[in-house]
Amino acid sequence: YGSPTPKRQTWKTLVQAFVCSPVAASYTDSSDDETSPRDKQQKNSKGNSDFCIKNIKQADFGRREIEIAEQEMPALMALRKRAQGEKPLAGAKVVGCTHITAQTAVLMETLAALGAQCRWAACNIYSTQNEVAAALAEGGFSVFAWKGESEDDFWWCIDRCVNLEGWQPNMILDDGGDLTHWIYKKYPNMFKKIKGIVEESVTGVHRLYQLSKAGKLCVPAMNVNDSVTKQKFDNLYCCRESILDGLKRTTDVMFGGKQVVVCGYGEVGKGCCAALKAMGSIVYVTEIDPICALQACMDGFRLVKLSEVIRQVDIVITCTGNKNVVVRDYLDRMKNGCIVCNMGHSNTEIDVASLRTPELTWERVRSQVDHVIWPDGKRIVLLAEGRLLNLSCSTVPTFVLSITATTQALALIELYNAPEGRYKQDVYLLPKKMDEYVASLHLPTFDAHLTELTDEQAKYLGLNKNGPFKPNYYR
Amino acid sequence: YGSPTPKRQTWKTLVQAFVCSPVAASYTDSSDDETSPRDKQQKNSKGNSDFCIKNIKQADFGRREIEIAEQEMPALMALRKRAQGEKPLAGAKVVGCTHITAQTAVLMETLAALGAQCRWAACNIYSTQNEVAAALAEGGFSVFAWKGESEDDFWWCIDRCVNLEGWQPNMILDDGGDLTHWIYKKYPNMFKKIKGIVEESVTGVHRLYQLSKAGKLCVPAMNVNDSVTKQKFDNLYCCRESILDGLKRTTDVMFGGKQVVVCGYGEVGKGCCAALKAMGSIVYVTEIDPICALQACMDGFRLVKLSEVIRQVDIVITCTGNKNVVVRDYLDRMKNGCIVCNMGHSNTEIDVASLRTPELTWERVRSQVDHVIWPDGKRIVLLAEGRLLNLSCSTVPTFVLSITATTQALALIELYNAPEGRYKQDVYLLPKKMDEYVASLHLPTFDAHLTELTDEQAKYLGLNKNGPFKPNYYR
Amino acid sequence: YGSPTPKRQTWKTLVQAFVCSPVAASYTDSSDDETSPRDKQQKNSKGNSDFCIKNIKQADFGRREIEIAEQEMPALMALRKRAQGEKPLAGAKVVGCTHITAQTAVLMETLAALGAQCRWAACNIYSTQNEVAAALAEGGFSVFAWKGESEDDFWWCIDRCVNLEGWQPNMILDDGGDLTHWIYKKYPNMFKKIKGIVEESVTGVHRLYQLSKAGKLCVPAMNVNDSVTKQKFDNLYCCRESILDGLKRTTDVMFGGKQVVVCGYGEVGKGCCAALKAMGSIVYVTEIDPICALQACMDGFRLVKLSEVIRQVDIVITCTGNKNVVVRDYLDRMKNGCIVCNMGHSNTEIDVASLRTPELTWERVRSQVDHVIWPDGKRIVLLAEGRLLNLSCSTVPTFVLSITATTQALALIELYNAPEGRYKQDVYLLPKKMDEYVASLHLPTFDAHLTELTDEQAKYLGLNKNGPFKPNYYR
Amino acid sequence: YGSPTPKRQTWKTLVQAFVCSPVAASYTDSSDDETSPRDKQQKNSKGNSDFCIKNIKQADFGRREIEIAEQEMPALMALRKRAQGEKPLAGAKVVGCTHITAQTAVLMETLAALGAQCRWAACNIYSTQNEVAAALAEGGFSVFAWKGESEDDFWWCIDRCVNLEGWQPNMILDDGGDLTHWIYKKYPNMFKKIKGIVEESVTGVHRLYQLSKAGKLCVPAMNVNDSVTKQKFDNLYCCRESILDGLKRTTDVMFGGKQVVVCGYGEVGKGCCAALKAMGSIVYVTEIDPICALQACMDGFRLVKLSEVIRQVDIVITCTGNKNVVVRDYLDRMKNGCIVCNMGHSNTEIDVASLRTPELTWERVRSQVDHVIWPDGKRIVLLAEGRLLNLSCSTVPTFVLSITATTQALALIELYNAPEGRYKQDVYLLPKKMDEYVASLHLPTFDAHLTELTDEQAKYLGLNKNGPFKPNYYR
Repeated sequence: YGSPTPKRQTWKTLVQAFVCSPVAASYTDSSDDETSPRDKQQKNSKGNSDFCIKNIKQADFGRREIEIAEQEMPALMALRKRAQGEKPLAGAKVVGCTHITAQTAVLMETLAALGAQCRWAACNIYSTQNEVAAALAEGGFSVFAWKGESEDDFWWCIDRCVNLEGWQPNMILDDGGDLTHWIYKKYPNMFKKIKGIVEESVTGVHRLYQLSKAGKLCVPAMNVNDSVTKQKFDNLYCCRESILDGLKRTTDVMFGGKQVVVCGYGEVGKGCCAALKAMGSIVYVTEIDPICALQACMDGFRLVKLSEVIRQVDIVITCTGNKNVVVRDYLDRMKNGCIVCNMGHSNTEIDVASLRTPELTWERVRSQVDHVIWPDGKRIVLLAEGRLLNLSCSTVPTFVLSITATTQALALIELYNAPEGRYKQDVYLLPKKMDEYVASLHLPTFDAHLTELTDEQAKYLGLNKNGPFKPNYYR
Repeated sequence: YGSPTPKRQTWKTLVQAFVCSPVAASYTDSSDDETSPRDKQQKNSKGNSDFCIKNIKQADFGRREIEIAEQEMPALMALRKRAQGEKPLAGAKVVGCTHITAQTAVLMETLAALGAQCRWAACNIYSTQNEVAAALAEGGFSVFAWKGESEDDFWWCIDRCVNLEGWQPNMILDDGGDLTHWIYKKYPNMFKKIKGIVEESVTGVHRLYQLSKAGKLCVPAMNVNDSVTKQKFDNLYCCRESILDGLKRTTDVMFGGKQVVVCGYGEVGKGCCAALKAMGSIVYVTEIDPICALQACMDGFRLVKLSEVIRQVDIVITCTGNKNVVVRDYLDRMKNGCIVCNMGHSNTEIDVASLRTPELTWERVRSQVDHVIWPDGKRIVLLAEGRLLNLSCSTVPTFVLSITATTQALALIELYNAPEGRYKQDVYLLPKKMDEYVASLHLPTFDAHLTELTDEQAKYLGLNKNGPFKPNYYR
Repeated sequence: YGSPTPKRQTWKTLVQAFVCSPVAASYTDSSDDETSPRDKQQKNSKGNSDFCIKNIKQADFGRREIEIAEQEMPALMALRKRAQGEKPLAGAKVVGCTHITAQTAVLMETLAALGAQCRWAACNIYSTQNEVAAALAEGGFSVFAWKGESEDDFWWCIDRCVNLEGWQPNMILDDGGDLTHWIYKKYPNMFKKIKGIVEESVTGVHRLYQLSKAGKLCVPAMNVNDSVTKQKFDNLYCCRESILDGLKRTTDVMFGGKQVVVCGYGEVGKGCCAALKAMGSIVYVTEIDPICALQACMDGFRLVKLSEVIRQVDIVITCTGNKNVVVRDYLDRMKNGCIVCNMGHSNTEIDVASLRTPELTWERVRSQVDHVIWPDGKRIVLLAEGRLLNLSCSTVPTFVLSITATTQALALIELYNAPEGRYKQDVYLLPKKMDEYVASLHLPTFDAHLTELTDEQAKYLGLNKNGPFKPNYYR
Repeated sequence: YGSPTPKRQTWKTLVQAFVCSPVAASYTDSSDDETSPRDKQQKNSKGNSDFCIKNIKQADFGRREIEIAEQEMPALMALRKRAQGEKPLAGAKVVGCTHITAQTAVLMETLAALGAQCRWAACNIYSTQNEVAAALAEGGFSVFAWKGESEDDFWWCIDRCVNLEGWQPNMILDDGGDLTHWIYKKYPNMFKKIKGIVEESVTGVHRLYQLSKAGKLCVPAMNVNDSVTKQKFDNLYCCRESILDGLKRTTDVMFGGKQVVVCGYGEVGKGCCAALKAMGSIVYVTEIDPICALQACMDGFRLVKLSEVIRQVDIVITCTGNKNVVVRDYLDRMKNGCIVCNMGHSNTEIDVASLRTPELTWERVRSQVDHVIWPDGKRIVLLAEGRLLNLSCSTVPTFVLSITATTQALALIELYNAPEGRYKQDVYLLPKKMDEYVASLHLPTFDAHLTELTDEQAKYLGLNKNGPFKPNYYR
């Protein structure tokens, strides 16, 4: 479990800052106040000053953002309603570290409605919507976050969340593992009272599994990144839309008739291929796994090695999770104008470093778009410098954020209320049944009507009428 | 583990007889010989008479059928080639009980080429291609099977396979569990020498799991029905085509503009929905599982309860594996001309029994097509009396049979060669890696070129370069 | 205007005989009566004997067929209803020559309901459904047709329709032009009283245009083959389904992953390509017209020359209307097992004659399926000997027949009622507005609800509220 | 032929200004020079001063833009190459009035390469790319245009193009009809020497047809707006992509599972429906024309009246070309959050005026996005204030611009070289053959290979080997 890596953090934040609610940007940008929030004395209208944010006066703007987000997150609103009366999080003291956006605010206010006390920091130095933070502070939440924190600010905010006399958290909600890391490093004794960690990100989950392997995980942790619903939405359905969106916003390319190679036919690759095929592109696929390869064939894609088509394609998309899938040799052979981008899990798929050589010229033509120019004049169009196109150049739909936030809330409830012994010092997936519950809370959005099993049918199938309906491994 | 159920057996065979190679039908039908094969004395050209089939003189016709099938089963042919020199089944004495068709013949001759001795009976009293059986007998295989066996013949043939002085099987290849049942009942001691059972059918696998649960399974068994490759092909890809084919052959219905409700959005339902949507039908889906329900929404299908659309749809298709999904009440409300059929795992989904009441008239309008007529003249069109449409009214592509046969061959090799202790007295799935191998053997059919991991990439991903590439649960 | 070509006629009939209602086949086939209808004395129950058919006793069976067809032809039934009271065909004496099937019977009874007298012969020596002919005769129609006419019978029947003392036709409904030809040849004076010809087939229309060009057409003729609605349905929508159906019924081929080349990207090619792409095939297109070629590109198909892909494809489909598209040289280069078939307008697209050479062996493996075998053992699978796959090996949906029949009825009404001078001695397309009316009569089948223009909108668009809504050339 | 309508002009320009190359925007925006170009004295490097633009010093930037555009307009570059040696426009004096962008520059330089002299003004007061105008001026073109002209500047620029002593145009290339109008009004005698007008826009073409009807058109005019290729690309293929792009950029909506109603199923509607269906939306269609309605049915869309679904849909899209399709009554009934936008030919389809009432609150949430809020809190999301979404909130692909520019160039060549008498004082469509030529020039972009007819085939089909291949009305 290594120390936090500030450089990477910075990359991540740059990328994600781009994503966050462009609507709100205007309010934030118009602020010309240069004083650091740490140097300001602010109180909310009730006299409370246990927070640190940019400007409490923006609270009204933030409230409006939150109200709009509420409309798009009906599942959390339903959770609030169903819990009326009982408070499944009564007594919970949740310390959180996530992006601070209108969607997060809906989550936090839901947790509060269910009985929890919350203290919150940002998991990213750029992604905070200042006016949302203001609305939260005005509403009584202890929030420590602003857009444009320094590295030092970042850890200071986290520390202020955790380190308060007379208050000790008993639940952690983390996104990236930095909060968890900080408590491990500075306040290891705190874990004695903590009932569990809920972690959202790939990176954070990876760190937890490493801790677990090393025998150092001292509380149960819930991996909400790998729940079925979230995975399908993040990967297949979300990427099916964001590949088109990301390419259009950056390059205005027409998809019809274009030849495209998609490297990797997992869920992300399947989503990309389906979308591009539907738009009239001719799509080739590369794979290492014969089962996925056979699926690509049956779905109507020619399965090739990259070298077979690299000279002829107009667009190259990586979705493998692997490294060095597109190496310099391939980049050298691409035709003039070829667009290269990455939709996979890391920024290692395209060997961008290999393009930083003296004979090649880089030209930034738009935000997130570079032309890399060969001595003979050939240009390739590199998007987001090989980082994730969908995060850098598209947006994450609120619907997906809603699924994530609902899953986080349910994971907190489950860990907080689980009887002694159900969870050990290990990393767990959300129980199938709760995963199904998250899904069911989102069906009304589509005016979708679920069928219920009759008693006779449930018996025939050997299932409980309320689920779970499928084995855990079902995707 | 109940006794075999002859009635059901007969149903099954009727259905499947329809399926089996219509090409061959001509040869078989032209035979006007009414003598029972059990009363005939036949020898092949080498003087061997250890077989019992319809007519050894049809061997040449059968050989031609086998040669054509060989062309469509390149994976088995590749297995033969790769094994040249080594004989992974040397010493294996395989007793088999499957449909006896040209495809099975390719499998048996592959097993022989890999070193095995084979004795074979039919798993079905109607499905044997007589001329293929003749070709196998001529080629030296001890085959006991003909089209149109009686129930008594059926068990007599199985017994002749097993019960031979001086020969004892050490491997079982079964399809339906009847052979396994017979040995359990008559020759339980035989299991001492048997290294394993490979079982292909849902029913047979179900029986094995019951035996295992009851602690009565005395050898390892391989469930080849649930391997990933086979499942995807049998369910998603195969049904995507057979739903169209089955409906067209029976009703000539035009799909464009038709309103269809598909009950169940598992793999079979997904295949049916995709095909019908592509043909211009308007498709509604019913589901009990909220996760599958959400997938249906994201794939563009309205999720409804059956009662909401039952009056307006033109076609009702069940794919749930459940019982009484379409009950009399729904059948009463359907509109005139509505087509009703079943693509699920059982014949219980449509409550056909409820239609056998005096006020309703049944009219058989074609093979597999009944009009059920209400007193007011309303007709519904019931296909295959509610049994599986894809088996009754369509064909199983050779490609799918090839995947099954290859999986069976590899399962035999694995069980026969597995070191002591790898498999206990339990039911196993084929190891992921062998599943991937089956897939890879079929890629050349599509001229598909797999990418190989570099050493560096394999290390980065923590994978062996030769697989397995995914966790076991991956679908 | 040449003489009828019996050989071709026979081919056509063979093909079409295959198509016609397999349901009915049973009744017809069970008849073992070998006496020629011309030698029989038959009366219907009202004592009328002005007909010549196989067996009047089959009338009840035929009536049932007609009743079922009525349910599938709601547009004609609607025409009957709307006309109640007024009889737009009062006084019309229609002589017809078409396939005599249940669908035709619905058309004839509709014409009668609208006031017409009808006499009818078959346009094809094999396609008559005897029991339908019986029902028509029983119903008082003068029908002269049976399944299995000789060439001589064929013309005798036509002559009996036309040549009746005291009765002279004033309208012709033809399918193929044989009836028109016969009147031209034998009774040219009859044209003086004839108000018009309605012709359905490509061949018949072609003959009419030649007559017109030569200045020999002496009455107005309506080309119902080229109406927009019929064209779209016959070509795009119908072929989208029949390409899959035709291939499945003949070869059981699995479409997923198959490489297919479609020659020609007109309406038929577009339908074939869309269907195969949706089923997971990889489709290549050849074209001569750069505009259609560009459309193929935008729809996601690689545009190639046949020679570029001929060695690799699994299926070759011609849809060009051209000749010698697939010549021997290409057939020589195809890979083993390649399927070759024709969906175009003629049987000239595949140079089948070039395959009838001594070194190639032909093997008939199923009805409509030949293996052509090269000396080295390579087989290609030739369907329907290069004739139209959709007619030979699939069925024409009743919905399409309904559109055709409705168009024919409206064309008769239009020609019969048109004011002097509206139509000259020329070939006409159905007026756009009536084409739209045919379409509108079929919308209820789909429970489709048309929007009506407000007065204000109609004025804004410069349209009549009741159409026509598009220029004549709109497709 | 009415006077120009400045108000509308201004709307149009506002819309289109948004579209034009965002890349270039940076250069233009950085200019802080406030002097009117009309007051500046500028010369290019060769001392020429016959132009009026923003800043000649930006020429280098503009040249780079032009060079990039050249790569995306291979058809024009091919025209230049093929014409080498011969100069089909030698002697042509073209006066043009179009958007002045990099793409137009490639067109102008192509015309020059083919022998023409060009003088050019902008057809829009906002759309000029100043640096491109500079590059053109530097290259010797007489350009009169800058971004942000006043209404007076606009007509002054046009006049400067036309009114030059010793120079008189003989060809007009117009986009919107303003240039043509100006000459009609001020210099009617000029038409004596003018060989023809090429007009690109719907509005301009409409004006020409009105002139023609009124007998006032005094030269031949070519309507390049309605050429087949352009129509298909502008409508079907372009809208298939821009509907998704426009909705995403403005609202970030997730398409999967959304219920959408598309009003109108012409080419634009077909494109929108296909795209949304492919992305997993549930799409309803409204139509007034029964033929298009039947097509919608066959393509798998429920045909409804708007009132039937207006309460349940998430997105409403108009594509009718009609007025008041979405009226206040429908807007009142939409559900909270419903998105409303227009893809049709005018800004009249949504009755936006009806929303400007005191009880409704408008809130601008992003560029081109308004929330209209009902007293009960319901919001609808109105895009581009009901103007064209694809022009306002998406981009026009260079490929489409290339097709238009090539068509314009060929139309100029055709009119300039046509023998006396081929064209009269009327409005013409580009000859089919030249339309096909435009298409063929764009095939290399897709590496698409056209098949050539053999002599024998051409004869069989009765076609010239070089086309035209289809009748004029073919779409």
